[in-house]
Amino acid sequence: MKAEIISIGDELLIGQVVNTNASFLARKLTELGWEVRWITTVGDHAEDLRRALLVALERSDVVIATGGLGPTHDDITKHVAAELFGAKLVRNEALLQRLQRVFAERGLKMAKVNEEQALVPDTAELLENTRGTAPGLLFERNGKRCFILPGVPVEMNVMWEKAVRPRLPVGPRPRRQRTVRTTGLPESTLFEKLGQVEELSRWVQVAFLPKAAGVDIRLTARGETEREADEKLQRAVTYVLERVGEYVYGYDQQNLEDAVAELLFAGKKTVAVAESCTGGLLAHKLTNVSGSSEYFERGVVAYSNRAKMEILGVPEATLVRHGAVSAETAEAMAEGVRQLSGTDFGVATTGIAGPTGGTPEKPVGLVFIGLASAERVFSKRFLFFKDRLQNKERFAQAALNLLRKELLTLNSPQRR
Amino acid sequence: MKAEIISIGDELLIGQVVNTNASFLARKLTELGWEVRWITTVGDHAEDLRRALLVALERSDVVIATGGLGPTHDDITKHVAAELFGAKLVRNEALLQRLQRVFAERGLKMAKVNEEQALVPDTAELLENTRGTAPGLLFERNGKRCFILPGVPVEMNVMWEKAVRPRLPVGPRPRRQRTVRTTGLPESTLFEKLGQVEELSRWVQVAFLPKAAGVDIRLTARGETEREADEKLQRAVTYVLERVGEYVYGYDQQNLEDAVAELLFAGKKTVAVAESCTGGLLAHKLTNVSGSSEYFERGVVAYSNRAKMEILGVPEATLVRHGAVSAETAEAMAEGVRQLSGTDFGVATTGIAGPTGGTPEKPVGLVFIGLASAERVFSKRFLFFKDRLQNKERFAQAALNLLRKELLTLNSPQRR
Repeated sequence: MKAEIISIGDELLIGQVVNTNASFLARKLTELGWEVRWITTVGDHAEDLRRALLVALERSDVVIATGGLGPTHDDITKHVAAELFGAKLVRNEALLQRLQRVFAERGLKMAKVNEEQALVPDTAELLENTRGTAPGLLFERNGKRCFILPGVPVEMNVMWEKAVRPRLPVGPRPRRQRTVRTTGLPESTLFEKLGQVEELSRWVQVAFLPKAAGVDIRLTARGETEREADEKLQRAVTYVLERVGEYVYGYDQQNLEDAVAELLFAGKKTVAVAESCTGGLLAHKLTNVSGSSEYFERGVVAYSNRAKMEILGVPEATLVRHGAVSAETAEAMAEGVRQLSGTDFGVATTGIAGPTGGTPEKPVGLVFIGLASAERVFSKRFLFFKDRLQNKERFAQAALNLLRKELLTLNSPQRR
Repeated sequence: MKAEIISIGDELLIGQVVNTNASFLARKLTELGWEVRWITTVGDHAEDLRRALLVALERSDVVIATGGLGPTHDDITKHVAAELFGAKLVRNEALLQRLQRVFAERGLKMAKVNEEQALVPDTAELLENTRGTAPGLLFERNGKRCFILPGVPVEMNVMWEKAVRPRLPVGPRPRRQRTVRTTGLPESTLFEKLGQVEELSRWVQVAFLPKAAGVDIRLTARGETEREADEKLQRAVTYVLERVGEYVYGYDQQNLEDAVAELLFAGKKTVAVAESCTGGLLAHKLTNVSGSSEYFERGVVAYSNRAKMEILGVPEATLVRHGAVSAETAEAMAEGVRQLSGTDFGVATTGIAGPTGGTPEKPVGLVFIGLASAERVFSKRFLFFKDRLQNKERFAQAALNLLRKELLTLNSPQRR
């Protein structure tokens, strides 16, 4: 059971928009047991789209195309598909009334161009769009199905759940997948530490994926039964943990902040942060987790030295003697925010995100992460790269990882 | 001059990774005047990759493929390309020595598997990888060129700049593009306000792209000369500004935070923020701009009521009577952080990001944005959706837009 994805839109071909729709659909189809072998992107160009649809219908059982269903002149998908499947465009009165109602409810006058959206191919099944105005379309031919969905991600996502997924059977060869997320080792060293990948390959497919926070190891098992796939996957995960377990922070979509949150929830611990160079990103990550108000008490983004002294109580002498970017300042900030908020942990960042502001002694990419608890106050130094946004990201990841390690040490003192 | 992009990797087909490489290359090629008509994604699957390369070499002048050049067993690109172009893999001593040196410099032992990376196709030109261990490859056949680059974004990006771009001529028909970014109008209303798009279409191609912050209008002009393309584009931009100028906040890659930063720089104004529901994201956005320390004094992420009272001076009575999520609290937070920091503006967010914590009166998605200046303190209420991360994003955008409008009002009092 092969599925194929076609993404439509000039904005993708000129690189203005990143194709998140394709990865969403690919993930969902894979989970369902379908095999996605090809993803094709074409522009708002009738002949290219026609050819892409024909090739896809030839080699795949299901085709899902997204984009180009909007009300404006550059939206050609409906017309191309109607022609390809030999359908006529006819006015759908129910749809027209729904469109008029949607606009009226929002207190808006319906633009004339939206009337065009009530024209639909007569042989297609309509898929309701609960989040927007363009309905999805489902064509069938020779036992193959072609879904055409809007390109606006939120509309497409809801339509997948409500209209596409319920119409697709679950794949025949159950598949189980797990991504083991590691931090602290380069890809090649990780590969060697795992020993013979041939051994692992008896149970699963293995792939290594380098990321900002570390390297992900993706394990995919297939079996004749769900149980067989489960067992193979479990063996592979155990094998990996035995060899590189100390570098593993989580699984699948779990981020470093999720791992930290789990440890904080489990230990009923609280945290406050004091940020300079990360400018709020560390607090943002920690509060991305639902329920974070249980462990996150407050954050201070102390960009100016005045804020560092006033709110966090960093001594002026420390700032003068060691500078704002120093181990001493990081530690004073961490301890300051912990005292101020009465939390178990205080975490601080101070560094030079760039692109300007570096010196030979303190180059762009340098950061100190401070950590304060009832037991101790310490800091660690890291040196990253030149790009401001990438540095903020790496700095925040480093801070989360330092907190994670400290929480692990406290929770199970036998581990280093 | 047609260019085609092929992205390689199972991680793309199962939706684990979003294909940012393709959009990077598409943008760069478009800027250079090349036309990108197709982007194809295939897995780590020799036959599919071979077929994709053949089709691309047939219909395009230049092919750029990324991914599958790493040292591990699932990296097949080099082997498939060598076979397709009739090359033999031979050991490159200079490359081997460079690999050994790179590892030695980092104080690491080179993993044995990296030796495989010193095997290169004998008919390919090698492209230096300054950020990683796998070199890029350039094959030529029948006047067509095929570049094969590593899939790690930072390595690929540098290789594009240093090795690919210098080898590609600039396109024959100069092209100019501008994206006009608007906020505050739905796509269809914007479309109607622009009147006859046919008129605009005499000068440019027009596309409408809905985004989290609003709708982008992309204008693309082509001409026989650079000057002709420039003039057409300028006319189109003027046409758009005359009709919907009040909804325009910026151009091209300019975000709302960039627009706000420009106004703050221009007016030599400073800002401090007090965040509840956005959890640091507003400060993060404001500090993403290089040089932001000139206008951003501090931020407070006051997640707990205690933090709201202690640091920001929100009266307990306000919290008790109106609740933490209220116009009154938003205004007290904004004024509190402004007083505390001595900045020109204080901006505050308080709301319910979800997914839990909503009530019938105060549902998930509700937010109050407070704004305080020397002239006045006020707040605005917005109601967004159900998703936590999306809500944080929209809340932060709403706060930035409110600040932007206030700055505009102050800078030019004749505007509404």
